[in-house]
Amino acid sequence: MTNKPGGFAQPKLAEQAFYSAFEFTDLALMMAVWDAQEDIVCIHPMGERLSGTAAISASFKSLFNNGSKLHFEAQAAQELIAGNIAMRTVYEKIVVIGANEQPNQPVLATNIFRLGDNGWRMILHHGSPAPPLEQGAPPGSLH
Amino acid sequence: MTNKPGGFAQPKLAEQAFYSAFEFTDLALMMAVWDAQEDIVCIHPMGERLSGTAAISASFKSLFNNGSKLHFEAQAAQELIAGNIAMRTVYEKIVVIGANEQPNQPVLATNIFRLGDNGWRMILHHGSPAPPLEQGAPPGSLH
Repeated sequence: MTNKPGGFAQPKLAEQAFYSAFEFTDLALMMAVWDAQEDIVCIHPMGERLSGTAAISASFKSLFNNGSKLHFEAQAAQELIAGNIAMRTVYEKIVVIGANEQPNQPVLATNIFRLGDNGWRMILHHGSPAPPLEQGAPPGSLH
Repeated sequence: MTNKPGGFAQPKLAEQAFYSAFEFTDLALMMAVWDAQEDIVCIHPMGERLSGTAAISASFKSLFNNGSKLHFEAQAAQELIAGNIAMRTVYEKIVVIGANEQPNQPVLATNIFRLGDNGWRMILHHGSPAPPLEQGAPPGSLH
């Protein structure tokens, strides 16, 4: 692990910054979390696969400009590290701030980080609708 | 890479076996594709996170017993290899055989493989509903 300034010393810290960037709609922080490579991949819930810095940055810019303030809580994280790759899966509890609402349907996210010269950076995010964490719903009917 | 008998010499071959196991509802083949570790993770579309061989095997047994015969086509694969980890994202075109139907809504899958003594084995599968491949739909409204 590296403690080089500007880098994240642990995958978990990079992940926390990812969700902070969401909460503060901070595009610069969001893109600092991502590895600046063309092979990075982002799949938003129900969205298409986005590849590369330009497409991913544009998608977050669009999301951040929609006006909603969101609070994220990453729950029940599981982490698997193999060499310079860390794979984390988390349930995202998402609340729309000011809407006085119950949390939205949780999102299950796979977050993958690569350790490079600038610490751990995100290389893949795949988010999708999940059943409530408490419920233990059966898997989808197709697969 | 290894060519040891019983192992997959390439991540793509392990992925093909994964979809073949689905088509033939072959639980033994399916579980031979997976690494026999407790840290493996499987997320079926709209389903909860499953961890470990027992839970994942039970989920596929349940899916294979529901009577539907499915045809899978993994399209537009993108692969990223870092050391002994391979990350592939594919659009799964799924057709229910005999139903004389249009393909179902495609599934976007992240498939992750680890190279070990027995070749490339799956360690993570995350499938979720995707927009049609042709359409280029915008990302989901929340994220």
